[in-house]
Amino acid sequence: MSVYLHDIPLSQAQARLREALQEADLWRVLNVEEIPLDENALGRVTTEPIWAEISSPHYHASAMDGFAVRAVATNGAMPSAPVTLFTGPEAQYVDTGDPLPEWANAVIPIENVESLDEHDQITTEIRKPKSIRVRAAVTPWSHVRPLGEDIVATQLVLPAGHVLRPADLGAIAASGHQTIRVACKPKVAILPTGTELVPIGSKLKSGDILEYNSLVLASQIKQMGGDPTRYPITKDDFDLICQRVAEAAQTHDLVLLNAGSSAGAEDFSSRVVEKLGTLLVHGVAVRPGHPVILGMVDRGVTSQSPARQIPIVGVPGYPVSAALTIDIFVESLIARWLGRRPLELPLETATLTRKLVSPAGDDDFVRVVVGKVGDKLLAAPLSRGAGVITSLVQADGLALVPSGTQGMEAGEKIQVRMYRNRSEIDKTILAIGSHDLTLDLIAQFLAEHDRRLASANVGSQGGLVALRRGEAHIAGSHLLDPQDGTYNISYIRQYMPSIPVKVVALVGRDQGLIVKKGNPKGIKSLKDLTNPEIQFVNRQRGAGTRVLLDYHLNLMSISKDSIAGYNQEEYTHLGIASAVASGRADCGLGVAAAAQALDLEFISLFQERYDLVIPKQFADGELLTPLFDLLMDARFREAVSKLKGYDVSVMGTLILED
Amino acid sequence: MSVYLHDIPLSQAQARLREALQEADLWRVLNVEEIPLDENALGRVTTEPIWAEISSPHYHASAMDGFAVRAVATNGAMPSAPVTLFTGPEAQYVDTGDPLPEWANAVIPIENVESLDEHDQITTEIRKPKSIRVRAAVTPWSHVRPLGEDIVATQLVLPAGHVLRPADLGAIAASGHQTIRVACKPKVAILPTGTELVPIGSKLKSGDILEYNSLVLASQIKQMGGDPTRYPITKDDFDLICQRVAEAAQTHDLVLLNAGSSAGAEDFSSRVVEKLGTLLVHGVAVRPGHPVILGMVDRGVTSQSPARQIPIVGVPGYPVSAALTIDIFVESLIARWLGRRPLELPLETATLTRKLVSPAGDDDFVRVVVGKVGDKLLAAPLSRGAGVITSLVQADGLALVPSGTQGMEAGEKIQVRMYRNRSEIDKTILAIGSHDLTLDLIAQFLAEHDRRLASANVGSQGGLVALRRGEAHIAGSHLLDPQDGTYNISYIRQYMPSIPVKVVALVGRDQGLIVKKGNPKGIKSLKDLTNPEIQFVNRQRGAGTRVLLDYHLNLMSISKDSIAGYNQEEYTHLGIASAVASGRADCGLGVAAAAQALDLEFISLFQERYDLVIPKQFADGELLTPLFDLLMDARFREAVSKLKGYDVSVMGTLILED
Repeated sequence: MSVYLHDIPLSQAQARLREALQEADLWRVLNVEEIPLDENALGRVTTEPIWAEISSPHYHASAMDGFAVRAVATNGAMPSAPVTLFTGPEAQYVDTGDPLPEWANAVIPIENVESLDEHDQITTEIRKPKSIRVRAAVTPWSHVRPLGEDIVATQLVLPAGHVLRPADLGAIAASGHQTIRVACKPKVAILPTGTELVPIGSKLKSGDILEYNSLVLASQIKQMGGDPTRYPITKDDFDLICQRVAEAAQTHDLVLLNAGSSAGAEDFSSRVVEKLGTLLVHGVAVRPGHPVILGMVDRGVTSQSPARQIPIVGVPGYPVSAALTIDIFVESLIARWLGRRPLELPLETATLTRKLVSPAGDDDFVRVVVGKVGDKLLAAPLSRGAGVITSLVQADGLALVPSGTQGMEAGEKIQVRMYRNRSEIDKTILAIGSHDLTLDLIAQFLAEHDRRLASANVGSQGGLVALRRGEAHIAGSHLLDPQDGTYNISYIRQYMPSIPVKVVALVGRDQGLIVKKGNPKGIKSLKDLTNPEIQFVNRQRGAGTRVLLDYHLNLMSISKDSIAGYNQEEYTHLGIASAVASGRADCGLGVAAAAQALDLEFISLFQERYDLVIPKQFADGELLTPLFDLLMDARFREAVSKLKGYDVSVMGTLILED
Repeated sequence: MSVYLHDIPLSQAQARLREALQEADLWRVLNVEEIPLDENALGRVTTEPIWAEISSPHYHASAMDGFAVRAVATNGAMPSAPVTLFTGPEAQYVDTGDPLPEWANAVIPIENVESLDEHDQITTEIRKPKSIRVRAAVTPWSHVRPLGEDIVATQLVLPAGHVLRPADLGAIAASGHQTIRVACKPKVAILPTGTELVPIGSKLKSGDILEYNSLVLASQIKQMGGDPTRYPITKDDFDLICQRVAEAAQTHDLVLLNAGSSAGAEDFSSRVVEKLGTLLVHGVAVRPGHPVILGMVDRGVTSQSPARQIPIVGVPGYPVSAALTIDIFVESLIARWLGRRPLELPLETATLTRKLVSPAGDDDFVRVVVGKVGDKLLAAPLSRGAGVITSLVQADGLALVPSGTQGMEAGEKIQVRMYRNRSEIDKTILAIGSHDLTLDLIAQFLAEHDRRLASANVGSQGGLVALRRGEAHIAGSHLLDPQDGTYNISYIRQYMPSIPVKVVALVGRDQGLIVKKGNPKGIKSLKDLTNPEIQFVNRQRGAGTRVLLDYHLNLMSISKDSIAGYNQEEYTHLGIASAVASGRADCGLGVAAAAQALDLEFISLFQERYDLVIPKQFADGELLTPLFDLLMDARFREAVSKLKGYDVSVMGTLILED
């Protein structure tokens, strides 16, 4: 059963596609249309230089409301020696924008003029005093906008390949155009395939997969300036897929065939491309996204367009792979078809917070959270799972581990293509540690106060280590000391001994037993765990929740050995809930939210404290001020107290200040 | 005739508007609507946090095509000691995304499995071999996407106030939503007023002004996320304007009344606001744009909306003032109404290339070209005229000379809000010197080679001085040495003596006499200038064209005194053409393009050489490589040779290399 994709290097894959497009005469601005010059032209791309048809202004124009004069006639005018000019031959009233009379070469603003007719109010009559008096000389061309000041007929207004912005439209209008030639939006067909796919909003049963890739892909294409069409889901049927692709090829410039690009039993995409045209590439040494397919398919005889073939991209099924495939292979193509520069994200150099292992042959794109802690710009890798679309949502940028390396060490410098600009990054509070729902609420409230909370979940101890390494501003922690029942302090002294900190209580939070709906086994307390009929599921060694369990078992003198399943381990609260939901276990210890997430029941047993640990150097800084304010904010307290299993009475209590 | 606007500081004006809006309960998200989750949701702003309804995946899913197994069953498997598993109870074929059987906790990818049924091709039958053989143990949960790996039901997916991007839409769909609540697009009425205004595309007569501000304003509003309505032009009629504003107020959230905001005879805007509501501010200490009006107007009884008043902004008439008024006063309002963060342009610190004088009381926004020359980031101020919309088109950023200073000196550091990102700036070739049409073509061609040409016109000598100061990469120059008839070299030695340079010829360009269409006075050569019937117009002292004239007059032994109008000076080629067009003069010396621009006739007399002067340190750098390539490019030569009055035979000739 040896099945191989022959991954080729990224640059080689891109080159093969480009060559095929050049051969098909498709590596150029695809189509041009003439559109009216209105606000819908915004974001479109010019296909030819725009030369000015007329000058602007197209005459010598007064730049002020005032009187047009010959400058020389004001020579010698002084406060003590005014010069009188007769209206008509020597001075003529002009509004801003009016043409200068042929004989005039300057304008005296109305506020510098005295009327000899004793008007001192602005009325329509003011334009025709018999004479005016001026008390200062003017130089030629003062307060005049000379012909062509803005635009000279025949000059270049905008080059070809320019993405139109609001002021550009004004300049094009000012230079005498009322239509504009722009690149047509490339038509992109997006075909989701897969028997397991169901449309957004479907009621789900096990094995169903929500089809939202076509939504993400269509949005990307739209953002790049293309015109996407989302096709309905096609099931895994070779002939049906061929039929749909052939159909789409007739009326589109590009087909994106989503999923089926791997080498599995139902991965038809490469065979579809081979049947309908030419398979150029199957497999690229890039992560995520390596099973990508690049090819050309025939348009068929009924097509109106002169192009006989169009490109097709077999887009991998995992959402992160799919989105990155579009960025890597399709953006530059759309840019070429529109005649604009390809998108270039700003680059920043950041310090990697943890080791990244990467296959040596692959270009590996890693989503990272970026934050500035002290003077250091840090890049904290997010989940690398190709299925984790929230990693794209949370990412501040994309870091590249280039092919030729086996990965990178923590502390190494890495290049990051930034999704956010520096001013946003500078307002980002980096929280690393144990996750709690309250952090989501903090993020929500801080957004109203010009701060962003980016959090990475590495557990309480991981958070303290991150603080020691200067990799976060705050850490959420709920570490119980089984010796004395206190929280966090002994761990802080152990893990970050030399760093002065401030510790503030955030919430009290219930831990309890997660059981099936209706609690069919009638579980009430830890004592019931010794019942051999009851199957328990535990958290992994070192988890705060396991420490808490052991502490209470000890207090209650219950032996671990008497609990069936004590050694069966899960790694998250939700893993516990899921084991209960599936029937593998009857109960496990966790937080209320995990029970709620899977519609299970929760038996509250005891409360633990969840604190925020903050190095002093950040605690006193401006960045965190809105966070401390929040802990005193009644609206925030109320929002947290509405969460099931939370107690806000401790919120804001100072636990420790060095 | 004393007419004053009482300018108040910017922050005070913004505060007055905000207070009025708070009082009217309009300083908040204006309206909310629920829209389908499709690609049209892109760019819309969430109005409430989005919590996950479901987990994703919503079951333990296989991450590969392969066989689901119990990890423990593979213990001990090694290359030399394979383990055999019977399909059904011990191994079950799963496609990527399939749910794991309840008993399984790991997946073995198909490529790591040997079939005992001697299939070695992927077929649909492969799913059902009787048994499989594995030669490596797997750990629990390997190649499995556990329930909630991406999203856990109840977790925060996105906060309120988030501008939706493609991946966000995917995450929202994955978390179980099919609609989304977003802020309604604020409805903005744009009313252009002015009797002198004519619509885009009109045939112009003297005094007509093309009305394109409403296009720019509508595009800005659209880009900010609002929904603009452009009204037709209203003439300067107080009652008519009142009627239109009252009408617009009934169906919009904001009225932008364009022009009429000064204090001239036909500037009705402030009276309109006073009549229909409350005038809050008339005049703000900001340049350009100080005659701005802020107020509230009544919506009238027929309005459907609960708001009784809506804001109105009297937008100054000059296009740059108008556009900046929207950026300064309206963007933050639209942001508030949408619930998103106001736009923040990235800031860079740059070195100012020339002195800026600014009224001490005003916040002065100066459009600048930004370029990196050597290690220095430079900001070169563009035209400060409020009527010069091309200055917005050319600007790379907006520099602020804050109130409280009288200006800034050349060489001082200035903060620039950047319109372009650094990677574009780093690819910018800064050209300062004499302008020539060929530079427009160079800009056009370079854009195809990932370079941008930004040019500032300060004349040939100014360009050499800029090179000496390290403020440009290249300078265009056409300085004739009247001693020996050579070009540029003696000036380069004089103005930048210690800087090694490379000088390359760009074009030969015709200079000649610009005369009226049909050449009514039958002018043929410089000799005709001595005819007392012929009125000449000259360029200013120091201009290259004047040096050229004097040189040829000298060669021809023609006395300056014999030329009527020799002392009548204009400052640009177009000034000469304009003087001829208006009849003030019969002819003047200039380039063919100026004649062409005003539809005049051109009598070619002699050719001058226009060179590119390049300090050696840049001549050898990668930045300029595409420029040198261009001089050898047949397509570029052909494009230049099509310009009237240009000779490309000298193009690329090395004149000097130090």
